[in-house]
Amino acid sequence: MLASSLSLALAAFLATGQAVAAPPQTRIPDAAISESARLREAALASDLGYRITESLTTEVGARLAGSEADARAVAWAQAKFKELGFDKVWIEPVTFPRWERRSESAQVLGANAQPLILTALGGSPAGTVEGEVVRFADLAALEAAPAGSLAGKIAFVDYKMERARDGAGYGPGSGVRSRAPSAAIRAGAVAFLMRSAGTDSHRNPHTGITRFDDGLTPIPSAALAVPDADQLTRLLARGPQRVRVSLDCGWDGEATSHNVIGEITGSSRPDEVVLIGGHLDSWDLGTGAIDDGAGIGLTMAAGKLIGDLPKHPARTIRVVAFANEEQGLHGGKAYAQAHAANITRHQLAAESDFGAGRVYAFASGAPEHAKVAVDQIAAALAPLGIEHTPGEGGPGPDLTPFVANGMAWATLRQDGSDYFDLHHTPDDTLDKINPQDLAQNVAAYAVFAYLAAQAEGDFGSEAKPAAVPSE
Amino acid sequence: MLASSLSLALAAFLATGQAVAAPPQTRIPDAAISESARLREAALASDLGYRITESLTTEVGARLAGSEADARAVAWAQAKFKELGFDKVWIEPVTFPRWERRSESAQVLGANAQPLILTALGGSPAGTVEGEVVRFADLAALEAAPAGSLAGKIAFVDYKMERARDGAGYGPGSGVRSRAPSAAIRAGAVAFLMRSAGTDSHRNPHTGITRFDDGLTPIPSAALAVPDADQLTRLLARGPQRVRVSLDCGWDGEATSHNVIGEITGSSRPDEVVLIGGHLDSWDLGTGAIDDGAGIGLTMAAGKLIGDLPKHPARTIRVVAFANEEQGLHGGKAYAQAHAANITRHQLAAESDFGAGRVYAFASGAPEHAKVAVDQIAAALAPLGIEHTPGEGGPGPDLTPFVANGMAWATLRQDGSDYFDLHHTPDDTLDKINPQDLAQNVAAYAVFAYLAAQAEGDFGSEAKPAAVPSE
Repeated sequence: MLASSLSLALAAFLATGQAVAAPPQTRIPDAAISESARLREAALASDLGYRITESLTTEVGARLAGSEADARAVAWAQAKFKELGFDKVWIEPVTFPRWERRSESAQVLGANAQPLILTALGGSPAGTVEGEVVRFADLAALEAAPAGSLAGKIAFVDYKMERARDGAGYGPGSGVRSRAPSAAIRAGAVAFLMRSAGTDSHRNPHTGITRFDDGLTPIPSAALAVPDADQLTRLLARGPQRVRVSLDCGWDGEATSHNVIGEITGSSRPDEVVLIGGHLDSWDLGTGAIDDGAGIGLTMAAGKLIGDLPKHPARTIRVVAFANEEQGLHGGKAYAQAHAANITRHQLAAESDFGAGRVYAFASGAPEHAKVAVDQIAAALAPLGIEHTPGEGGPGPDLTPFVANGMAWATLRQDGSDYFDLHHTPDDTLDKINPQDLAQNVAAYAVFAYLAAQAEGDFGSEAKPAAVPSE
Repeated sequence: MLASSLSLALAAFLATGQAVAAPPQTRIPDAAISESARLREAALASDLGYRITESLTTEVGARLAGSEADARAVAWAQAKFKELGFDKVWIEPVTFPRWERRSESAQVLGANAQPLILTALGGSPAGTVEGEVVRFADLAALEAAPAGSLAGKIAFVDYKMERARDGAGYGPGSGVRSRAPSAAIRAGAVAFLMRSAGTDSHRNPHTGITRFDDGLTPIPSAALAVPDADQLTRLLARGPQRVRVSLDCGWDGEATSHNVIGEITGSSRPDEVVLIGGHLDSWDLGTGAIDDGAGIGLTMAAGKLIGDLPKHPARTIRVVAFANEEQGLHGGKAYAQAHAANITRHQLAAESDFGAGRVYAFASGAPEHAKVAVDQIAAALAPLGIEHTPGEGGPGPDLTPFVANGMAWATLRQDGSDYFDLHHTPDDTLDKINPQDLAQNVAAYAVFAYLAAQAEGDFGSEAKPAAVPSE
């Protein structure tokens, strides 16, 4: 795309006789804007996104990366792309360490004996340990605990995650999950417990991946359901408490899953792609409806509805169902590596991985010369109740490796007010999705992808010097 | 109380010279009405009911009848009555069969393999069975299944319980739970599944007692969480489904627990009692906050606040924490037997066992001669937003055996709109209780019990001919 941009700039120079200061503005033809309005209405009237999400979450259910169900999800995605009439469907391998959950329980011991509901964090080792619980209000408090001060004890970080439309509370919440187990080990703890990184009040704990710093011996690490964290805090206010934590889970070799890709071939520039997608894997506790069955369903539906238009857009619409996002963006990293030589062919990309709430804002990381086209897309999205918020947000998780290498991105930001009530819990099930809200998402992605695929000019994808080399 | 009423009637006859047509009207002195207004405001300003409920649900937690925790609950209740300054505290034995839950799981087998979240119904036997699932829309449909038609299969009743302020949906919902397992056995089923009798959409299944008709061999019987019932129904719409149900639970001998009773002794008629209470046991899945920690907390608090008045009311306030309501009103039946000879000493009784929602209606089964006093109580409750709805409702579950024998009853009906979101699930925890709503309940019970204890004249308790004899 760099070469192409320079050619256009040269043409502009020759036509005007002026010095080239910047690439010419990317623009979307009026006819495409008109067509996108019809596409938007067709999407709003369709339940296809919901039906695809229902199919995945019902027929496959939970699909932990590397599990038998994950392999069934890959087969499901290929079959679904074909059933929907995508022009090309293929898979690309993604290899990663396999983690399994087998059983988990915890009990308060002694005078207040009672069970606590928890779930192992992804990456936790197995183990059954008993110890006195030491509570910390947040990560910083635990990090301040002197080395050895928790010897033989169980560290408990009771940080309450805050609710926000844009999910801003998840940064600190997931920070506890990813960093506190190592801090607990440094202080000598034999196990780690946290209040779930969630905003609900149900006895459905929130799992999620954790990691242990190099050189540390991992300890059993788990998240208490929010009411159980409340309960433990009340018990600790009454006096010391001993707890038994019993986790059977752990790493078990390697697994290979697949990114599954479907394309609606472009009518005039088929080698240039607009990429949309979500991730196919889920945690094992729920059926992965909002995380991220919805992202799969709504982007597959958007692609299908674009494919149903009288004429395909100029560029190819590529829908990617990424493998194993949950345990470390393995699918996104594999995609970035496999396609590193083709960054400039990726015109613009957006991933849906924040539930099934209505899209309320649109933004793009595209450069100044794409401003007109980005504004045109924003205007076409406005009837869906979507604001243009330049500079806010960022690419979806699976796109970050490729965006780091230079791919242009956009974001369709969803209302995540309720997302962390359900995220990574048993409660992430289809009934939590509002079909009308999902249809609005399908409309937003369809309009966005169609217009980006019809734009004359590029959105600034350009291989960066530090790009990951193709393998 | 019958003798006392006749004495009053005789006095009235002597005073007026007219024939006695009916007992004289029971009335509450104006001074007591005034005092009840102060009591009401003191109760609304107090968090005592919440603190007692917190103490029980935190320090004891779940307390399945006959369990170690149930025994701790009995000790807790005695200690709490004493700590609150009740004048008399004692226990009365209640013996019943003990049922235990050890583990439970279910999986869809085959091409759509996935776990289903369920919980054994109380009274279910253990067993691991596999079979094809046959779905029925409701109990009547299952009852119409011919004998032998479900041989080797799993019966699934998918009845959706309806939400209602007064809990009217629970009749049909619990009817499935109590009657459908026997119908499944008659049709030859090897296991029974039902959609939980609940109104939520969380993966927290609703347990509850079931029974098997005489002469039938019990089969493993369980309730699916509501989203899992939805999921199974969607799967069945796609084709036949085999499911494995594995329950480890069952009856295990007898246990003896206790009704725990505390009294605020009456100042002038101490042998006459106004009874309020709730049940001390809970199911094992939650911590029994709304069922029925709230009933215990709010009636204990009401008694304590009455005891704190400058002068105790004429009659005794008796607060009863009933044993093992959940598995068949064992505590209520034991109380009725133990106190059968003293029905007329029980002036009026009301049990709180419908959560912690605000009281919205008051009614009593008292006869015509108590109408003035009942109206006076209703008027004193009106400032709490409580309507008088004569003839509506009935006594709490633990009172029904004694009411059947002739005890007068009243009801303070709570808003149960959300009750069956939580009832008998892991989600029945303290955080679901609104402290202000609970304080309104305490105020209602305090005003009610105080005024009934100050009434001049009775509320119609009278031993019926068919009364259960005292043992």
